[in-house]
Amino acid sequence: MEVSLLALRHSGDVLFLLLGAVMVFAMHAGFAFLEVGSVREKNQVNAFVKILSDWSVSTVVYFLIGYPISYGINFFTSASGLLGQNQGYELVRFFFLLCFAACIPAIISGGIAERAKFWPQVCAGAIFAGISYPLFESLIWGQNSAGLQGFFKATLGAPFHDFAGSVVVHSIGGWLALPAIVVLGPRLGRYVRGRSQAIPISNIPFLALGSWILAVGWFGFNVMSAQSLEGVSGLVAVNSLMAMVGGVLFALIAGRNDPGFVHNGALAGLIAICAGSDLIHPIGAFLVGGIGSLIFVFGFKYEQEKLRIDDVLGVWPLHGVVGSWGGTAAGIFGSQALGGLGGVSFLAQLAGSLLAVVYALVTGFVVYRIIHRVSGFRLDEEKEFAGADLSIHQINAYPEENLK
Amino acid sequence: MEVSLLALRHSGDVLFLLLGAVMVFAMHAGFAFLEVGSVREKNQVNAFVKILSDWSVSTVVYFLIGYPISYGINFFTSASGLLGQNQGYELVRFFFLLCFAACIPAIISGGIAERAKFWPQVCAGAIFAGISYPLFESLIWGQNSAGLQGFFKATLGAPFHDFAGSVVVHSIGGWLALPAIVVLGPRLGRYVRGRSQAIPISNIPFLALGSWILAVGWFGFNVMSAQSLEGVSGLVAVNSLMAMVGGVLFALIAGRNDPGFVHNGALAGLIAICAGSDLIHPIGAFLVGGIGSLIFVFGFKYEQEKLRIDDVLGVWPLHGVVGSWGGTAAGIFGSQALGGLGGVSFLAQLAGSLLAVVYALVTGFVVYRIIHRVSGFRLDEEKEFAGADLSIHQINAYPEENLK
Amino acid sequence: MEVSLLALRHSGDVLFLLLGAVMVFAMHAGFAFLEVGSVREKNQVNAFVKILSDWSVSTVVYFLIGYPISYGINFFTSASGLLGQNQGYELVRFFFLLCFAACIPAIISGGIAERAKFWPQVCAGAIFAGISYPLFESLIWGQNSAGLQGFFKATLGAPFHDFAGSVVVHSIGGWLALPAIVVLGPRLGRYVRGRSQAIPISNIPFLALGSWILAVGWFGFNVMSAQSLEGVSGLVAVNSLMAMVGGVLFALIAGRNDPGFVHNGALAGLIAICAGSDLIHPIGAFLVGGIGSLIFVFGFKYEQEKLRIDDVLGVWPLHGVVGSWGGTAAGIFGSQALGGLGGVSFLAQLAGSLLAVVYALVTGFVVYRIIHRVSGFRLDEEKEFAGADLSIHQINAYPEENLK
Repeated sequence: MEVSLLALRHSGDVLFLLLGAVMVFAMHAGFAFLEVGSVREKNQVNAFVKILSDWSVSTVVYFLIGYPISYGINFFTSASGLLGQNQGYELVRFFFLLCFAACIPAIISGGIAERAKFWPQVCAGAIFAGISYPLFESLIWGQNSAGLQGFFKATLGAPFHDFAGSVVVHSIGGWLALPAIVVLGPRLGRYVRGRSQAIPISNIPFLALGSWILAVGWFGFNVMSAQSLEGVSGLVAVNSLMAMVGGVLFALIAGRNDPGFVHNGALAGLIAICAGSDLIHPIGAFLVGGIGSLIFVFGFKYEQEKLRIDDVLGVWPLHGVVGSWGGTAAGIFGSQALGGLGGVSFLAQLAGSLLAVVYALVTGFVVYRIIHRVSGFRLDEEKEFAGADLSIHQINAYPEENLK
Repeated sequence: MEVSLLALRHSGDVLFLLLGAVMVFAMHAGFAFLEVGSVREKNQVNAFVKILSDWSVSTVVYFLIGYPISYGINFFTSASGLLGQNQGYELVRFFFLLCFAACIPAIISGGIAERAKFWPQVCAGAIFAGISYPLFESLIWGQNSAGLQGFFKATLGAPFHDFAGSVVVHSIGGWLALPAIVVLGPRLGRYVRGRSQAIPISNIPFLALGSWILAVGWFGFNVMSAQSLEGVSGLVAVNSLMAMVGGVLFALIAGRNDPGFVHNGALAGLIAICAGSDLIHPIGAFLVGGIGSLIFVFGFKYEQEKLRIDDVLGVWPLHGVVGSWGGTAAGIFGSQALGGLGGVSFLAQLAGSLLAVVYALVTGFVVYRIIHRVSGFRLDEEKEFAGADLSIHQINAYPEENLK
Repeated sequence: MEVSLLALRHSGDVLFLLLGAVMVFAMHAGFAFLEVGSVREKNQVNAFVKILSDWSVSTVVYFLIGYPISYGINFFTSASGLLGQNQGYELVRFFFLLCFAACIPAIISGGIAERAKFWPQVCAGAIFAGISYPLFESLIWGQNSAGLQGFFKATLGAPFHDFAGSVVVHSIGGWLALPAIVVLGPRLGRYVRGRSQAIPISNIPFLALGSWILAVGWFGFNVMSAQSLEGVSGLVAVNSLMAMVGGVLFALIAGRNDPGFVHNGALAGLIAICAGSDLIHPIGAFLVGGIGSLIFVFGFKYEQEKLRIDDVLGVWPLHGVVGSWGGTAAGIFGSQALGGLGGVSFLAQLAGSLLAVVYALVTGFVVYRIIHRVSGFRLDEEKEFAGADLSIHQINAYPEENLK
């Protein structure tokens, strides 16, 4: 009977992590629809194909290179070996963590939309999901974490705590997008003679659909980050909820009922809470999400109008800056003084968050400058004007309508 | 090892209820798309923002006020206290039951679409989700249930049985919508010189998407109402299925292939079965759903054409009347004579269902009359004509297209 | 305590299979959107109503006739009997397997789109889901499997292995669609004076949504085919992932960035891996999916241009031929020599796959010829020209727009 309890436990762990993986896999449909709704009609098909291709390439490179880098485990053994161990738990863990790695190109995709070449963008995604993301992951969560985390603990009082990836996933993605967007330059007509000219988005229902899919899947992203059934925590679930809700309400006020801000505000809240969702009090989570949402609303406007960075979906403020806020906020609202479970150090949280910024900016500029040199990163002007759909995919999103 | 089995059981309960919560949370995207597809294009954005805002406000008020009212438990303690108890089971239970409470404004939203002011509508939703729904919930399921249920048992032979909320959730929502719709009055142009003029809906694919999302999430709504893994019941799942299918097929015939009736018929079936899904025989469930669907098809026509009530999505017949039918039907088809598990009283079911009608009508008229007096409930004529999207959100659903 | 462990195990099994059922039920929304996106606007409503009606009729006939044929178990007993057994496990198993049976009409629907009469098509689906699919199912998985599988084992070295239905579900569906499409003939204007004239599809975002929903649900289709929690296998999950990814990438190259091929390529990979997902190595799964995708891309072109078969969604190459490939591939890549778990016979796999082809073609031609004779299978020319939406459902997909 002891055997049986153990078997049930292993089965439970595999099911738990599988459900998380499926939910985060589904989030990639959310990335796709969020982008599809936010670009012009002539680039909708491209958004779909990019997200699905990036996902697929990420799977291959993370399977072959990334997961071995992060966790020192590879799958070049026979299937019997894999299956023999706890019903394939390690495989499901790969699947779950791949879903995180594949967020990197999906996040960047929204920033560089409507004017990037297809294959160079896929290649950059492959480098990030296969190499640079796993290297950082290995330092925080993976096989090399003893070193860096030990250093943090020794010098700043606690390891860097990032329960579900505010920093490791979202801020890395968002801060990698910034160099990509800068190297690429703004879309044709976005800034004319120094004046910002808003380019209208195409489809708010698709944007909202994307946001909903992401928000629903996020409960897998955060809760299943425990990686074992016995680690399941209602606190993580409710903190995710409260942060999302804080994000919506603060964006509703600050963004004056704007549907784009409201639906992205939900995501800002969720991004902000990932890091500390296991130790903040729900009311703290509400504030962490709400502040994250304000950072997004004002950061987006500042980025677009003052800095003149044509970040189509605002992924740098959303995933980048809000991700960094989330990492830092875990060190504030996670403290026992503010109702949290404690055990975190504000300085360690700040240091870890900043380290990710520097790491992403450096690797991002190196990779995108090389790509820019080697193959070119930007579509030709006529192709951009015609739209990525016709230029790259020889079809547009509504073929029947366009033949009328 | 005993400890370990207990830990596994608690983890299983938390996971079980969390999955239910996530599925019912996702249903709110379904409410949004169902409404978006059923209103005119000029009110689609408003539908999305309403549903998400109502959800967010409901979360806050149910967390602070509603859940304490219903179950006598509050979360104004430190996170360590919350986490210490069974891995946050109580928090997940709050999340799950919030999803039910938040259905109230989501249901009403579909009835008052296209002409209500934004903030007054949000306030009404907050009052219902935070106070009046929890008061009723506490009587049937919550901390005050001993009193009323004891009275039912003593006088009518059995407590009022509402397994998953045909009455507590759906009929309360639908019967609250009726006063809201009456206070608000019909949309401009809906009834001209006493004649009914149908206002065309905008988008059947979005309506269908909403219906599908609701139907899928409903299995979490019903099955996870057991609130513990060991209470999981295949009967509840299959009864939900059979009632939905009965709803579709009866609507297909009675509604003469109309896609709106077919997709709402599925929902009618699901609403009708909630109350008795744990004790009716699957063939009984098919009939309960089918009859619910007929009530909706003919009730909707009667409401719109004879009573001249401009209930845009037909939420009063759908959630209100069919919900009452579901509560009553549990007392008919739940009896052992009709293949059910028994233990229910027809009179108690009827009495509980009627009580909900009265409670909702009274609280609804009071709240909406006050709102009507204090702030006004209806958009100005020009704003209604221009559409809630431009009037309230300064954007419409397809910005690129509308700039062409 | 032994009792308690057993209870937890049963609960876990019911939850496990229920989650699978819900995920595969959701796939039917995917079938709907895939078809809606791939037909012309004038047939979108019809696609939605067909899928939901087929689902509902399938539920009834599989409950009353199909499941008893396949597994020798019926539900004409009282609810107490059903509930008494392991918390309704048998009922949930019915639900899960119904989701498979209902794929048959959903698959066919995509092939015969835009020109079939409504009720004759529903009737054919009922015959397949209620009788002919269950008969085949009973031979491979069900109560009569001892006979045929024993024969395979005795003569070809191993039983026919179809873990999650590449053959039993997909190839049966796809090869049944072929006679339906042939009996029906091509859409008006599809082939003019012997020349193929492409009919443009309407909506790539809906096609992509359908593909995403199907892909996400597929993890329930494959993983939950274990039918018990302790049978959960990370290998099945990751093989599904790898095959899907192989399908996407091979279609991306072979289909030259075409969004239709990329999104259907994901499905081709998933169809191909069902049979052997529990015993192939992940790298083998990548190839099985990739080859499946190539079969689809080139098979679709060959079917449409050379054979002049107007199979609107390409369901014959997709589900039919790729399904047969999947059954056969399990006998190749499942062998230990190629890193698989072994225990399969190539000849048995080939024989079982061919048997399904013959079975489906024969039953398909018989049923569709009879329907053609008895009631007619094809819409009148004017009705086809006007579109199935207006002809059958008296409404089109965007009523507001069409009234402008």
